[in-house]
Amino acid sequence: MRSYILSFSCPDRLGVVARYSSLLADAGAFITEVSNYTDPVTERFFLRCVFDDRALNVTMDTLSQRWQAVADELNATWVLRASDDLPRIVLAVSAQDHCLSALLTKWRAGALPAEIVGVVSNHELSRGLVEWHGLPFYYLPVTKETKPQQEQEILSVFSELDGELLVLARYMQILSDGLCQELAGRAINIHHSFLPGFKGAKPYHRAWERGVKVIGATAHYVTADLDEGPIITQEVRPIDHETTVERMIHLGQDVEANALSQAVRLHCEQRVLLNGQRTVIL
Amino acid sequence: MRSYILSFSCPDRLGVVARYSSLLADAGAFITEVSNYTDPVTERFFLRCVFDDRALNVTMDTLSQRWQAVADELNATWVLRASDDLPRIVLAVSAQDHCLSALLTKWRAGALPAEIVGVVSNHELSRGLVEWHGLPFYYLPVTKETKPQQEQEILSVFSELDGELLVLARYMQILSDGLCQELAGRAINIHHSFLPGFKGAKPYHRAWERGVKVIGATAHYVTADLDEGPIITQEVRPIDHETTVERMIHLGQDVEANALSQAVRLHCEQRVLLNGQRTVIL
Amino acid sequence: MRSYILSFSCPDRLGVVARYSSLLADAGAFITEVSNYTDPVTERFFLRCVFDDRALNVTMDTLSQRWQAVADELNATWVLRASDDLPRIVLAVSAQDHCLSALLTKWRAGALPAEIVGVVSNHELSRGLVEWHGLPFYYLPVTKETKPQQEQEILSVFSELDGELLVLARYMQILSDGLCQELAGRAINIHHSFLPGFKGAKPYHRAWERGVKVIGATAHYVTADLDEGPIITQEVRPIDHETTVERMIHLGQDVEANALSQAVRLHCEQRVLLNGQRTVIL
Amino acid sequence: MRSYILSFSCPDRLGVVARYSSLLADAGAFITEVSNYTDPVTERFFLRCVFDDRALNVTMDTLSQRWQAVADELNATWVLRASDDLPRIVLAVSAQDHCLSALLTKWRAGALPAEIVGVVSNHELSRGLVEWHGLPFYYLPVTKETKPQQEQEILSVFSELDGELLVLARYMQILSDGLCQELAGRAINIHHSFLPGFKGAKPYHRAWERGVKVIGATAHYVTADLDEGPIITQEVRPIDHETTVERMIHLGQDVEANALSQAVRLHCEQRVLLNGQRTVIL
Repeated sequence: MRSYILSFSCPDRLGVVARYSSLLADAGAFITEVSNYTDPVTERFFLRCVFDDRALNVTMDTLSQRWQAVADELNATWVLRASDDLPRIVLAVSAQDHCLSALLTKWRAGALPAEIVGVVSNHELSRGLVEWHGLPFYYLPVTKETKPQQEQEILSVFSELDGELLVLARYMQILSDGLCQELAGRAINIHHSFLPGFKGAKPYHRAWERGVKVIGATAHYVTADLDEGPIITQEVRPIDHETTVERMIHLGQDVEANALSQAVRLHCEQRVLLNGQRTVIL
Repeated sequence: MRSYILSFSCPDRLGVVARYSSLLADAGAFITEVSNYTDPVTERFFLRCVFDDRALNVTMDTLSQRWQAVADELNATWVLRASDDLPRIVLAVSAQDHCLSALLTKWRAGALPAEIVGVVSNHELSRGLVEWHGLPFYYLPVTKETKPQQEQEILSVFSELDGELLVLARYMQILSDGLCQELAGRAINIHHSFLPGFKGAKPYHRAWERGVKVIGATAHYVTADLDEGPIITQEVRPIDHETTVERMIHLGQDVEANALSQAVRLHCEQRVLLNGQRTVIL
Repeated sequence: MRSYILSFSCPDRLGVVARYSSLLADAGAFITEVSNYTDPVTERFFLRCVFDDRALNVTMDTLSQRWQAVADELNATWVLRASDDLPRIVLAVSAQDHCLSALLTKWRAGALPAEIVGVVSNHELSRGLVEWHGLPFYYLPVTKETKPQQEQEILSVFSELDGELLVLARYMQILSDGLCQELAGRAINIHHSFLPGFKGAKPYHRAWERGVKVIGATAHYVTADLDEGPIITQEVRPIDHETTVERMIHLGQDVEANALSQAVRLHCEQRVLLNGQRTVIL
Repeated sequence: MRSYILSFSCPDRLGVVARYSSLLADAGAFITEVSNYTDPVTERFFLRCVFDDRALNVTMDTLSQRWQAVADELNATWVLRASDDLPRIVLAVSAQDHCLSALLTKWRAGALPAEIVGVVSNHELSRGLVEWHGLPFYYLPVTKETKPQQEQEILSVFSELDGELLVLARYMQILSDGLCQELAGRAINIHHSFLPGFKGAKPYHRAWERGVKVIGATAHYVTADLDEGPIITQEVRPIDHETTVERMIHLGQDVEANALSQAVRLHCEQRVLLNGQRTVIL
C-alpha cells in the first residue's frame, strides 16, 4: 500500500470539496487525512489531502490525468506526490553549525521527511561534520566581487544534486534579488528574531538594547524583500534582565533550530501553501 | 445570509468526504470551512464543516432530511445547527469566582459564542456579580446528607433554563456518578493541575512538594471516573523555587480561566468531538 | 511581626552587599528574601530585599535614618516600605473592559498586592461594574479640544485619591508629553502587540496582514516616546492562518490581561527597577 | 582578572548575608552577581555569588580558609570554584542520539560551560559521532546478568576520566540503587514526560492513550526512587489529536534535548542547590 499527498489552492466556489473528493472516490482513492481552509478575505480555497491506493481502481497516471482536467477547470495550483518520494534538500550554512547539526541529527534519526543531498558553505568549518554524515560538502567562498559567480555555483550544485528545496541554515550572506526570484517558494531561511521585530542585522544586540522579555526566531520563505517573506513558523523563549547578548545567542540556538526544523518538516509534508505574503499551514 | 455548522463522526470508509460534500453541493450549500480527521487506530472519521445559504436551492428542512438519510447509512453521530443559534450555558461555581468572572466578562464582550443563562452555586458569595450581569443566581447549599436532593435541584434549574452545557467553573463538589452520566458530554470541568499529574485534591500543594517547575490546568468533560474525563484543553505556566503555594494559587487563576474559556468556546463552536476517552478538536 | 521591602539601585562598587547587609544585621533586621543584580554594561547595582522585625533592636525610624546615611554615601535611589502598606492604584479604561475586569477580580480575590482606589474613563460603559465593586467611577469624556483640561482632571482625581500608580487598562487615548513626564515611572500601559513589532495603532490588523504565527502583549512604563517605554512583561500566544482579526482580538484579551496583571503585581511588590530604557525585575 | 563562584546553603539565621559579604568585602573580593533565597518552610538559606579578584588583597587560599571557618560556624554545605575551571562531564547514551548530539554541538560551539571528557554507551551506534568530536567512546554492553559488572565499568571510566557529572542523555537502563547512591547529586537524567505524569516506561504511548494536549520532558537528579529525583528543568510542547506516538517521539526530541541542555548548564554554573527533594535554581 502506498500513500499520496495532494495539495492545491484555487479561487473558492460552490462545490470544490465535492468536485475533488468525488473524483478521488470514483477512482477508489481512500482518503486518510484532509485539511482545507478558505480565506474569507481573498476567497481562495486551500486543501491538503492524503490518500492511499488500497482500493484504487485506476492507475496513478490515469488519476493524475483526471485530476489535471479538474484542476484546469478550477484554475488550481497543485502538487500530487507519493509520500515516500521525499523532497531533496540542499543546506547552506556559514560559520555557526547549530541549525545544520539539528537538521542532520533529525535526518539521520528518520525524524525529517526529506532527503538531505548536500551542503554548501562559504566556510570550511563544517566539512568534517557533513562528511561524517556521508554527504558531499561544497566549499564556495564569497567576496563582494565574486558574489554573482558564487551564487551561480550554488545554483549549479543545487541543480546537479536535483535539489528541490534550499534551506538557509544560518547562511549569513544576503542573496541577490535574482537568486531570490530563481528560488521563489523553494528556499527557506531562519531569521534569529521574532519578525517583524528586529529585522536585519544583529537582532539579539538590538533585543538587549530594547530590553524585551521574550526572544524568538522566524522561519520564512526567501524573497527579494529582506526578512519580509511569508512566515512559516515562529518560536519564542522568555528571557530576563540577566540575559546577556552572549547568552541570548546561546539560548537562541535552540529556538532557531526548532523553528527551522519544524518549517522544513511542514514544507516537505506539503503542508505549507502560499496565500499572497502569508502562509496557510494545513 | 446565514451560516450553519455540521459536525459528525462515523466509521471510516471509502468516499465519506465525497458523500457528505456532494450532498451539500447538490443542495447549493456553500462550504466555507472544513476540518476532518481519521483516527488511524480506531479507523473512525471526524468532520466539522461550516456552510452558508447564499446559494441554497432547498429548504434547511429538506437538507436536514437528506443528511439524516446519509447519516443513517454512514452510521454517524452528528449535530447540525445554525451558527447564530448559540448554546445555552449554565455555570456552577463555589467560593472562588475567577473562572466565573472571566467567562462573564468574555460573554459580555461578545467573545464567547454562547448564551449564559444562569449560575448555580453552593455559596452566596457570587450573587452580586452574577445579578449585576443580569443573570439569575441559584443558591443551592449542599451537605453530605442533602447532596442527592441538591443535585436534583441543579438538574431542575438546568432543565428549566433549557441548559445545554453545564460548566463547572471551580465548583468544588464531586458530582455523583448518576449526575455525571446524566450530563455525559454536556458538562465541562476545570481541574487545577496538568493532568494526569496531581489528580484529586490540593494539586498546588502537591506540586509544591514535588518541586515541579511548571504548573497547569486541564479542562475536560466530566465523567464518573474523577479527573479522568476526555481532555479538551491544557494550559501551563512556568514557576520556580520561590513560588509558594499561595502564589501558585494566584498564578493558577489565569491559567485555569484561560483553559476553561478556550474549552467552552471550542465546545460551543462544535469543534470538540469525542473519540473514546480522547477528544478530536477540529 | 511585620515585614518590609527595601529596593535600591546605585553605582556598583566594592562592598555594596556588605554595606547594606551589615547595617540591617546590626539593627536586628532579619532578611528573608534578597535578589540583586549588577549590570555589567552600565556597572549599576540593583537590589531588592525583604526583612522582618522579629529581632529588630531599633525603631524603624532609626533604621530608616541609618539607611538614609548609607544611601547618600552610595548615591542610591531607594524605596523602603512595609509590605502591608499597599500601593494605591487608579485605573484608566476606555470602552473595552477585559483588563479592568481582570484587575478588579484579582483585587477582590486578594491576588493583587495593591489597593485599587478608583477608576477614570472617557466612556460611561464600565460605571456599573466599577460601582458594583464599591469603587468611585469618574467619567471624564475627552475631545481633541478638551484634552488638556481632561488630563488635568485625571491628575486631580489621581491626586485626590492619593494615587501612587496609574494603570492604563486599555485606555485608548495617547497621553500628552506633559502628562507622561508628570507620571514618569508611575504609569503602566498595556500595548496589544509584542513590541517592538507593530508599534502604534491597530496591531492585530497589521499582525494579520504580515501573517505572523504568534501574537503578544507588552506591559511597559509610559514615556513620551509612544510604545517605547521600559518593558516590564511580555506574553505571547500562538495563532494560525485561521485566526481572523476578530479572533485575535478575543484571544488577545487573555494575553493582555495576564501581561498587565503580572506587571502591576511586580511593580507593587517593588520588584521592577529602572535601568535606563530597560527594567531589572528582582 | 579571574572570577569565582561561591554557592552554599545553611540553616537560616540573622545576619547570614552580612556574614559572608563582609568576609568577601574585607578580602577585596568584588561581587558581580548574587542570588539568594530562604525557604520559608524549611528555614534554610541558599546563596550563589560570583566575585572577581580585581581588588583582592589576600590569596585565594587565604580567602578559602577564612570562608571555611565561617562556613563551619554557619553549618554550611558549599562549593567555591573558579568559573573557568569547567566541570568534567561524562555522557551515557543508548540507541537514540538526539540528546547526545545536542550536547556535543553546544559544547563544540562554546555554549556549554563544561568539559565533556567521554561517552559511555551500551550500544556501538554513536561511536562515529563521538569520535568525530575527538572524544573517547566506551562501549559497555549490558545484560541482566552482567549489569553489576557493567555498572562497575561505568564507574571506572567515570573515575579514570576524573568525571564530576554523569549525564544520562537517553541512557535507557535503570541504574541500580547502589550506583544511584554512589552518584547522588552527580548524575542528571532526562525523562521524556512531564513528571509526575507518566512515570516509568513508554510515556509517549501513555500520553497518547490519555489524550493529553501538551507533552513534556523533565531533567532531574538521579535517585534510587525511579523518576522521583529532584527536578531541575521541565519543558513542554502543545500537541493535538493528530499527533501520533511516532510524531510525539520526534517532537519530544527537541523538548528533551532543550530540557537536558538547560539542566546541565545550570548545574555546571553552580546554580542548582538541593533542598530536600526539591531544587533551588539561583
